[in-house]
Amino acid sequence: MEDKPKITLYGDYASQPTRACYVFLKYNKVPFEFKQVRVTKLEQYSPEFKKINPNAKVPALTDGDISMFESHTILRYLHESRKLPDHWYPRTDFRERAKIDEYLDWHHNGIRLGAGGYIFRKYMSSLTGKPAPKESINESLMNLKKSFKLMEQYWLKDDKQKYLLGNELTLADFSCASEITQIIPSNIASILDGYPKVKAWFQRILDISEFNKVHHKAIATLSKYFQIIDDQGNKPKL
Amino acid sequence: MEDKPKITLYGDYASQPTRACYVFLKYNKVPFEFKQVRVTKLEQYSPEFKKINPNAKVPALTDGDISMFESHTILRYLHESRKLPDHWYPRTDFRERAKIDEYLDWHHNGIRLGAGGYIFRKYMSSLTGKPAPKESINESLMNLKKSFKLMEQYWLKDDKQKYLLGNELTLADFSCASEITQIIPSNIASILDGYPKVKAWFQRILDISEFNKVHHKAIATLSKYFQIIDDQGNKPKL
Repeated sequence: MEDKPKITLYGDYASQPTRACYVFLKYNKVPFEFKQVRVTKLEQYSPEFKKINPNAKVPALTDGDISMFESHTILRYLHESRKLPDHWYPRTDFRERAKIDEYLDWHHNGIRLGAGGYIFRKYMSSLTGKPAPKESINESLMNLKKSFKLMEQYWLKDDKQKYLLGNELTLADFSCASEITQIIPSNIASILDGYPKVKAWFQRILDISEFNKVHHKAIATLSKYFQIIDDQGNKPKL
Repeated sequence: MEDKPKITLYGDYASQPTRACYVFLKYNKVPFEFKQVRVTKLEQYSPEFKKINPNAKVPALTDGDISMFESHTILRYLHESRKLPDHWYPRTDFRERAKIDEYLDWHHNGIRLGAGGYIFRKYMSSLTGKPAPKESINESLMNLKKSFKLMEQYWLKDDKQKYLLGNELTLADFSCASEITQIIPSNIASILDGYPKVKAWFQRILDISEFNKVHHKAIATLSKYFQIIDDQGNKPKL
């Protein structure tokens, strides 16, 4: 008999925060069901999904009678409710935990504003009928470079550390790497060469088989799509 | 003899996240020193401050040998390190804690994107030499209305609850209310009338004397400044 409520993760492989939660569940061998909510088909706005997440965004999680949205909330909740190893998000060492929170709280207006913002403005915005102006695309690129610089000089400053917060994986690693993955098939992939510590850390995360499997597929799909837009300028016809 | 390291909060009264941390410290009677970092004078970029916060934003906190940035990280850390009452951010009930995390994680691209985005674009951007275009100001306004609607229908759906997450204050209340305060002296203050539950909750927070004292002063300062810009259109001469 199952003594834990069953987890369902709602999301889309094309969504970076969905992939962070998906990989975290797989890596930690937590049983779950995945329900695809296709954002390109606007399924996140369906009345059924809005009952689960009134904010109409992916990912969302249900666990028995509780539901929640926001990927970092989902990661923190899974870690605590499934009693996963302490290194992900220390329970008693609140000084160490603060350093992970600091990354997770920065993420939204840091790497996500840069990477997610760039990809949305450069590749997605034209699909909405309102292509982003060139200067706003450049603004996102500047934000991304600023974020990589901070990672290089602050989180990854110690040459010997394996991961973002030291030598063990934390919630910050999967969240950050899932966001960066989307620039790989884009026209700015080469900027990573300017940030060797970020590049080496990112490669270390990509080499984790659970991470690689999900992201390999996502990169391949995005790659085809981005190529069409790169070829057509700002007028995609899909 | 002092057995706790001394806390220093670095920030600016004009910064919403600074005010959230400041009020939290005052309300909980945690002794601290406040050091003003004037963002209008770009003091956050000084080499001295960047040693404390390499991200060059306010607020930041030092506590003995540890330093950190990001207001939600600061709030969580203060709560745990000073053993403050459980209702702010439950220690053992991780289901309740997840509902607070959900708000805190949403905040960045929710109320802050709307309220902070609107005020920056409408009132601050012209000072940087790049006034925001009208359509981007409208975009922020739409985001703000969407955020208020979600608060009304989701966080504040129960007519009887006093605060965002129930009948006791949580970290979410001060963070959210500090962000909303800045629209009071702006040209869109009246939109709150369209969201009666948000308005009533916000008034309840404003009535807390520690909150009122700090924000009353901030509103008065912003009010003078916004008036000049409202009078001059998009060409402030300060």
